[in-house]
Amino acid sequence: MSKASFKRLPGFRDFPPEDLRFRNHIFDAWRRVALRYGFQEYDGPPLEALDLYVEKSGPEIVGQLYNFRDKGDREITLRPEMTPSLARILSERSRSMPKPIRWFSMPQLFRYERQQRGRLREHFQWNVDVVGEDDVAADAEVVAVAIDGLRELGLTHEDFRARVSSRRLLAGLLGALGVTEEHLAAAFAIVDKLQREGDKTAQRLRDEAGLDSEQAAQVLELLVGATLDELAERFNGHEGVAAEVARLQTYVGYLQAMGLGDYVEFDLSVVRGLAYYTGIVFELFDTGGELRAICGGGRYDRLLELVGGEPLPAVGFGMGDVVLGELLKDHGLGPGPDAGVDYFIVCVDAEQRELALAIAHAQREQRRSVAYALREQGVAKQFKTAGALGAREVIVLGPDEVARGNAVVRVMASGEEREVSLEELR
Amino acid sequence: MSKASFKRLPGFRDFPPEDLRFRNHIFDAWRRVALRYGFQEYDGPPLEALDLYVEKSGPEIVGQLYNFRDKGDREITLRPEMTPSLARILSERSRSMPKPIRWFSMPQLFRYERQQRGRLREHFQWNVDVVGEDDVAADAEVVAVAIDGLRELGLTHEDFRARVSSRRLLAGLLGALGVTEEHLAAAFAIVDKLQREGDKTAQRLRDEAGLDSEQAAQVLELLVGATLDELAERFNGHEGVAAEVARLQTYVGYLQAMGLGDYVEFDLSVVRGLAYYTGIVFELFDTGGELRAICGGGRYDRLLELVGGEPLPAVGFGMGDVVLGELLKDHGLGPGPDAGVDYFIVCVDAEQRELALAIAHAQREQRRSVAYALREQGVAKQFKTAGALGAREVIVLGPDEVARGNAVVRVMASGEEREVSLEELR
Repeated sequence: MSKASFKRLPGFRDFPPEDLRFRNHIFDAWRRVALRYGFQEYDGPPLEALDLYVEKSGPEIVGQLYNFRDKGDREITLRPEMTPSLARILSERSRSMPKPIRWFSMPQLFRYERQQRGRLREHFQWNVDVVGEDDVAADAEVVAVAIDGLRELGLTHEDFRARVSSRRLLAGLLGALGVTEEHLAAAFAIVDKLQREGDKTAQRLRDEAGLDSEQAAQVLELLVGATLDELAERFNGHEGVAAEVARLQTYVGYLQAMGLGDYVEFDLSVVRGLAYYTGIVFELFDTGGELRAICGGGRYDRLLELVGGEPLPAVGFGMGDVVLGELLKDHGLGPGPDAGVDYFIVCVDAEQRELALAIAHAQREQRRSVAYALREQGVAKQFKTAGALGAREVIVLGPDEVARGNAVVRVMASGEEREVSLEELR
Repeated sequence: MSKASFKRLPGFRDFPPEDLRFRNHIFDAWRRVALRYGFQEYDGPPLEALDLYVEKSGPEIVGQLYNFRDKGDREITLRPEMTPSLARILSERSRSMPKPIRWFSMPQLFRYERQQRGRLREHFQWNVDVVGEDDVAADAEVVAVAIDGLRELGLTHEDFRARVSSRRLLAGLLGALGVTEEHLAAAFAIVDKLQREGDKTAQRLRDEAGLDSEQAAQVLELLVGATLDELAERFNGHEGVAAEVARLQTYVGYLQAMGLGDYVEFDLSVVRGLAYYTGIVFELFDTGGELRAICGGGRYDRLLELVGGEPLPAVGFGMGDVVLGELLKDHGLGPGPDAGVDYFIVCVDAEQRELALAIAHAQREQRRSVAYALREQGVAKQFKTAGALGAREVIVLGPDEVARGNAVVRVMASGEEREVSLEELR
């Protein structure tokens, strides 16, 4: 037998128990909040036909995917995002379902990006979607779920905010300020980069979006400072802009009614690169400004139709576990110490082995967690193992007590001991 | 925009909410039982280096795998089983860990098998392992976890049994009955097929395992009927056989002490095809005999060393969700009806919208699940949605009651209504 040494693939994580507990802590919070909002959990396969993503995002996407040709000569890929699977699943069944559909999922997603230090090729992502409702109440409901997901994990509005915008509003404003239809996509791409390369924005608006210097300056001024009230006043004669401003005002009002107004900031520079968003978009970000976005989402009213389903409006978000995990760790938030087992059973000698097994199983039947040494060992060693397993109480089976029909139970935290009848334990 | 129509890949499952609930029902039971036995949960990546499996199972395995070459020119595969990942993860850290290590996981696993009707290419598998303990108590503990996993889901010893054998015992018996070292592997393969092609077994033992007619008849007689007590008596002078019979007797005794004796049957024909088992092996199977094995496991004392880790004895099992799911459905066992949301809030007109949002969020903060219509709708339609969501109670916000500072709360099951002050609700 050779003794090869194997490593995990670059960009992937192992989850030994301490990391899995942290992951489950996040998953449990996500699931609790989604259920509290009346969402139902679903899942799909980690592999899908490559075309599903090419159809939605264009052929450029393939360079970033974990795609391959399978043994049946199919072009397939590990899923890079969940929404196309959601759309595919719904395309087969949405027509017979009452609307709106409220579904959530927590899939593992994969991208084959050129490996950078610390950059992962997989993450888990909480996906929450409302399908079949175009009222802005659905948009507000979805961002509230995302905000409460973070609040459930102990984060507050001092730690994170939601930046909210609307692509429809941005298109209307850019149009009103002189960007022509043909330059709109270029202008969106420039605005999308504002956070990272703000100083080049005016120049690029002139060079790539066909604006003159004054127009570019006006756009820039709106992007960095305009409030909804200012926009409402300044563009009240411009039908498309005014309607979308009113929609955003309703949205903010709904979040205020929920008590979440403190979490929401209007920010016209939020675009969300992906092409398929059609209305209100949002990002959650840490107020420290040190991390990438924690979560991104918005309205995508044309995707279901695009993959062959019923034409239905939709709004949703994806929140990954990696950036969120960093933020939680920065704030010292986590699952708390491991509870350990309820009981550890110590046998003073081998004679008590079968009695220990009977007690262990009886306690497990009552939903208590129980461990014991799986071989004959000295009492001191058994107590050491009990300590390592974080046992709350140790049940000691010694020949004298057992002969009297009893066992000694020691509370590990206090050292307090009492005799308990074996009848009670088994 | 084209309207393509996408399908899921053959052999994969979607999990719409009704199926995901069933899956979570199984996962929750698995997790509860493992924790009760003091096991800790872990996970690994769904992709691993192909060599990890070739090292363990030989190059023949590649034909059954979902393997491919990634963009970094690595030969990789979707994991077909969890134990090699467990061994890889432990190889990096086991030396500093107290033994035994008790870990469990619930990974999704993948095989690219030629597609047969209803045969899946993925399943989820509960993996439970004790690493670092060669005492037979570890073997008993592991099979007890598997048995209790099924009991937790409502199955009883009328529905399933554990068939138990030992590869070391079988090797000793075959040797004692005339199978030479060089024929041992062939004889194991023949015994492994006994259930499916029993009538050919005697012939094959003569043709392929070098036995004469009398020897073959003796082997066959042992395989189908021998009890542990008979073997103890007949082979008490044969050291290797006697020691392994005694080990199995201790094992059965431990399970009897736990109250699980009814679940265990000694059956020498259980071999578990995989080459890496070294001692006691077992299968759980349905007593109806209609399904494939529900679970298989056993002792594998050389695997960790094989993948480059610390040489540690180990025992564990894998239980898939597919065969188990069929058995549960055959017995009408499942998660029970969906609980539905706690509250649905009905607005008599749009004036109450923001009040509804405030109440919804206040109740969600108290961990209740709440839904409401995401657009303005008639009261009858809202009640219909409340019914579809299985709401336990409906909170009706009408102008008159709200003016009095109250809401009407209707219990959906009984139709009983009461007025509750808004202060209590928000």
